Amino acid sequence: MSSTISPLALPFPDLPPVAGVTLRVARARYKTWDRCDLTYAELSPGTVTAGVLTQSRCPSPEVEWCRKALTLGQARALVVNAGNSNAFTGSRGRAAVEAIAARAARHLGCQPSDVFVASTGVIGVPLPIDKAEAGLDAAFTAEPCDWRAATETIGTTDTFPKAATTAAIVDGRRVTLVGIIKGSGMIAPDMATMLGFVFTDAAVEPAFLQAALAAANAASFSCITVDGDTSTSDTVLAFATGAAGTAPLTEDSDGADAFRAALADLCRQLALLVVRDGEGATKLIEVQITGAESDRSAHRVAMSIANSPLVKTAIAGEDANWGRVVMAVGKAGEPAERDKLSIRFGNTQVAREGLAVEGFDEAPVATHLKGQEIEIGADLGLGEGSATVWTCDLTHGYISINADYRS
Amino acid sequence: MSSTISPLALPFPDLPPVAGVTLRVARARYKTWDRCDLTYAELSPGTVTAGVLTQSRCPSPEVEWCRKALTLGQARALVVNAGNSNAFTGSRGRAAVEAIAARAARHLGCQPSDVFVASTGVIGVPLPIDKAEAGLDAAFTAEPCDWRAATETIGTTDTFPKAATTAAIVDGRRVTLVGIIKGSGMIAPDMATMLGFVFTDAAVEPAFLQAALAAANAASFSCITVDGDTSTSDTVLAFATGAAGTAPLTEDSDGADAFRAALADLCRQLALLVVRDGEGATKLIEVQITGAESDRSAHRVAMSIANSPLVKTAIAGEDANWGRVVMAVGKAGEPAERDKLSIRFGNTQVAREGLAVEGFDEAPVATHLKGQEIEIGADLGLGEGSATVWTCDLTHGYISINADYRS
Repeated sequence: MSSTISPLALPFPDLPPVAGVTLRVARARYKTWDRCDLTYAELSPGTVTAGVLTQSRCPSPEVEWCRKALTLGQARALVVNAGNSNAFTGSRGRAAVEAIAARAARHLGCQPSDVFVASTGVIGVPLPIDKAEAGLDAAFTAEPCDWRAATETIGTTDTFPKAATTAAIVDGRRVTLVGIIKGSGMIAPDMATMLGFVFTDAAVEPAFLQAALAAANAASFSCITVDGDTSTSDTVLAFATGAAGTAPLTEDSDGADAFRAALADLCRQLALLVVRDGEGATKLIEVQITGAESDRSAHRVAMSIANSPLVKTAIAGEDANWGRVVMAVGKAGEPAERDKLSIRFGNTQVAREGLAVEGFDEAPVATHLKGQEIEIGADLGLGEGSATVWTCDLTHGYISINADYRS
Repeated sequence: MSSTISPLALPFPDLPPVAGVTLRVARARYKTWDRCDLTYAELSPGTVTAGVLTQSRCPSPEVEWCRKALTLGQARALVVNAGNSNAFTGSRGRAAVEAIAARAARHLGCQPSDVFVASTGVIGVPLPIDKAEAGLDAAFTAEPCDWRAATETIGTTDTFPKAATTAAIVDGRRVTLVGIIKGSGMIAPDMATMLGFVFTDAAVEPAFLQAALAAANAASFSCITVDGDTSTSDTVLAFATGAAGTAPLTEDSDGADAFRAALADLCRQLALLVVRDGEGATKLIEVQITGAESDRSAHRVAMSIANSPLVKTAIAGEDANWGRVVMAVGKAGEPAERDKLSIRFGNTQVAREGLAVEGFDEAPVATHLKGQEIEIGADLGLGEGSATVWTCDLTHGYISINADYRS
């Protein structure tokens, strides 16, 4: 964890245990630091899994491993390494992932494909197998730990630990969902650059869990951006232990909608926490597009605004520079007509149908921009498509963090 | 002009006159500043024109005016306003452009469509017609000025005046080309955010001038990026007065290749000057992609690297962080295979076929990164496609300029 906490940080929430999930952490010493950097989550037999993974064409071997293992839909363990992403390390990187999976499988008496692995940190240095194995052995015999310790252990440049919880009534019983997440830079479209893990004691059929996670992802992790940079290691995995004793959920179950909604809510909470920890962030920006030709088009326009360095620096400067919003709408490459475009900051319309609103009240705009949560709205006036995405401002803090970072 | 000159600035070149072009500048006082901010170039009768304009869906009325006037292919005057882009100003903005064109046409006894107008500056404030007309009247009676005065007058946040020249032998005679350009922020793919004007005394058929300019643009202005933000006002216009007395060039003329090459060279010089004046830039970065499936694919991968905040901050920090280059290749959405990817900084291979080069010599890399001109090479190992693009590093200077800019 970094020493300077984001001004947008939220306190760590109270999190209930999730039956069937046992967490342990250990020191693998992937870097010369005195902190736990290996997280080991043991999952009860019968745990079902689903996942969404980076769309990078140069994914880490962990991502390739998970993509393959996900086709089987079951899990007994999750191992997360912090400090070394193991990406772009060729056969040596693959060997490290295989060694970790084999060792955990031997410990649990399961198949290596039941073991999921994720790593985050520097690219290009093979994960040292000896450190991983020693760390894993230490984790096997460590005392179980709480969510907070696990969340802190998966973090790297994060400035605060990020987790959330929710619940749903399924099959007449309350099921719990808890998610932990890390990430603050290299956060981008398609999927946020981060590692996120969701655990629930609900019983869920793999196909439904995958569909529900994909839908939740589309409205959460795929709607955030810090810097437009997509990592080689993006991973979100969901694990359903079934320990609540409910009947396995399918899309036709009575509780399907409730579970879907709870999972979507949880992912949205987690995604917003990542933006709140965006490198150098001082303001959380919500971009709302309406009136686009389609939802997909609206999403692209929203991302064009959310990724614009000029919009993000204007918000950092508390400057109601709606001209830069016009620019970002215009460059998105999506249908837009200047003379139908309206823009607002907070609740104040500043431009309507291609023109500045004459004499709009600047006081509420100035007050809104001085706050920590900024809303930019743009109505394209063309159709019914809408989208909401989240980003943060671009500040000197981002430059300091990334121009001084040691590779 | 800004007071802090870019460390990458080049001295203003010696520029020859171009027969048929007369430059004048005046104070329209679009902002409360004591400088000339209106440039008026009078072009001799018979001048042929071509142009490339922003692909923004929210273009300024100037861009719309030029797009329409370009269909006729002839020009008698160019008027450039600095300090107010007149973009997103609806019918009032259109009226201002029409008023300027009408006034210059009356002065010259030509059609309004022979008058080209470009404006740069704040978005959303209609260009004041009274100031434009008074400024234009002052320009009509001003003494002719030199290239440097005109170049300084079209500038806004530029830190140094940017111009270039070249020549070609056409039809047995030497023809001269001179270009002036402004722009340092909002510089992005598709076309750089800037106003650029090329003048030549060659005689050129409109269709050939347009084709030659489009080709030159594809390898110059479309290959630079400062911040990935595309302006609503991007404009490059070429004017061929024919005053050299050569036969009008067509694509079948003997001199066609020489003219094409000279125009391409000039545009490349101008484009690189814009990157050298990139907001906050301390290093000029050339990204060379080889081995892509196609040139188009290579261009997209190159732009993904050139627009990556993480790559640009790493270069600012003189950090050989090739992992971020891998990330940027991976996120480009183009065909790429990790295990065929090789990366170099300067002449030093740092990664080859998906792996760090063991024990590569770090000294020449460190020396290269300490310089002002940085070369990043990536070979995708897939095909014959290649592309080169230019960008600059991302520094505290960019944030200072853009978070403090007053809208």
